[in-house]
Amino acid sequence: MSKPLILVSNDDGITANGIKVLVEAMTALGEVIVVAPDSPQSGMGHAITIGQPLRLFATDIFKDKGIEAYKCSGTPADCIKLAKHHVLKGRTPDLVVSGINHGSNLAVSVLYSGTMSAAMEGAIEGYPSIGYSLADFSHNADFTHTIEYVQKIASEVLTKGMNKGVALNVNFPPKRDENIKGIKVCRQAKAHWEEEFDQRRDPYGRTYFWLAGNFVNNDKGEDTDVWAVDNNYVSVVPCQYDMTAHHTIAQINDDWDI
Amino acid sequence: MSKPLILVSNDDGITANGIKVLVEAMTALGEVIVVAPDSPQSGMGHAITIGQPLRLFATDIFKDKGIEAYKCSGTPADCIKLAKHHVLKGRTPDLVVSGINHGSNLAVSVLYSGTMSAAMEGAIEGYPSIGYSLADFSHNADFTHTIEYVQKIASEVLTKGMNKGVALNVNFPPKRDENIKGIKVCRQAKAHWEEEFDQRRDPYGRTYFWLAGNFVNNDKGEDTDVWAVDNNYVSVVPCQYDMTAHHTIAQINDDWDI
Repeated sequence: MSKPLILVSNDDGITANGIKVLVEAMTALGEVIVVAPDSPQSGMGHAITIGQPLRLFATDIFKDKGIEAYKCSGTPADCIKLAKHHVLKGRTPDLVVSGINHGSNLAVSVLYSGTMSAAMEGAIEGYPSIGYSLADFSHNADFTHTIEYVQKIASEVLTKGMNKGVALNVNFPPKRDENIKGIKVCRQAKAHWEEEFDQRRDPYGRTYFWLAGNFVNNDKGEDTDVWAVDNNYVSVVPCQYDMTAHHTIAQINDDWDI
Repeated sequence: MSKPLILVSNDDGITANGIKVLVEAMTALGEVIVVAPDSPQSGMGHAITIGQPLRLFATDIFKDKGIEAYKCSGTPADCIKLAKHHVLKGRTPDLVVSGINHGSNLAVSVLYSGTMSAAMEGAIEGYPSIGYSLADFSHNADFTHTIEYVQKIASEVLTKGMNKGVALNVNFPPKRDENIKGIKVCRQAKAHWEEEFDQRRDPYGRTYFWLAGNFVNNDKGEDTDVWAVDNNYVSVVPCQYDMTAHHTIAQINDDWDI
């Protein structure tokens, strides 16, 4: 039996530590091909590149491990699309993994996350897909405690498959003295960002703003991704790209005069 | 009773015809304030601007109608965030509208749509929100047949409110000889883009790609947004930002060895 084909991408860019950890973890499970952005794409959401051309170049960044890798000038979603059409050449990946993101993608952050957009794009193409994020923003974040769980979750998906239209959003707690307690399958918390804009003046006297803010969780549930990571569990949220609020359809038909 | 406060944005940029039509339609319903991107942002998905500063400047583009307007260097989602914190100054909009987009945002396109990301950002902030799109990409698209429906739907939302966590994705058929048949409340079709990349060589001999492709609908349902617009109805899809695939949680708990 041939080894599973695993496509790896991310949003922090192909030189980030997180993707290096992920590539190494995946080599134990199958044949790995990397197509990732050539520069950081954090906060790109599900952006795609329209109106300007894309570049895709082979890179020897993972050559010491014998792994084929490409860097792309576009977004994480672009990477998956280009991989399908110009790298995989008719082969179908058994798994798409994205990350490991430097920083969490919990609750509504899934909407803004480039990491998850690569995974969702994989799901749209019909591939079992997982986005991995670590709740530690630092460039030198310690990923060692995540590796066994990264492999465990990928193995489960390779073995048992994934529902059509669904990708997994996996978040790891930061490295703590205590070991990770296990895996929780969660719902997306009803938490949000409370932005603050840092208003400054440039040397020419004109105003500019930096987006900043705090993550606020008013969701008391213990079945949420935020709760799991806060309590030193790995959170796994199955995410779907059908955004229809089905419960609201009947209600609008009842309430509206149309 | 004071007039409702209506915040208007879009993704085609503040000079697009579609936002002009939307602003004019909204002046009949309330007090309008515009905060929109200073340049086209199509395909930006739910991107936000991290790592570089944002500009926000007043513009007299709608001064002839007595309407306060601002152009922003960021994405549609940035516009809504900046509007909340630096334009509305503590006032709460009764409605956020985005569009009218030049081009449809049907089916899975909702994920890539800057138009809908402004509306979803409004919903995240707790404001009743609507994204409007016309299934006609042309710069000089005819919007005349949409106006009564743009106002009708906005009026219904202003009067009857919107479920928390939900924004409406409204798509109009292109102008045809036949009148629009009415409004259908729909689900997001299981349709997708089949990309093709146009591969070229630059004057230096290096390869580049243009993203292109066709929209393919294999969803036979007559309750979808694609069906509605194809059949000359206005489609209204209630969209939620909780992307949890709730049905999959129990299944993973059953199937996986965790």
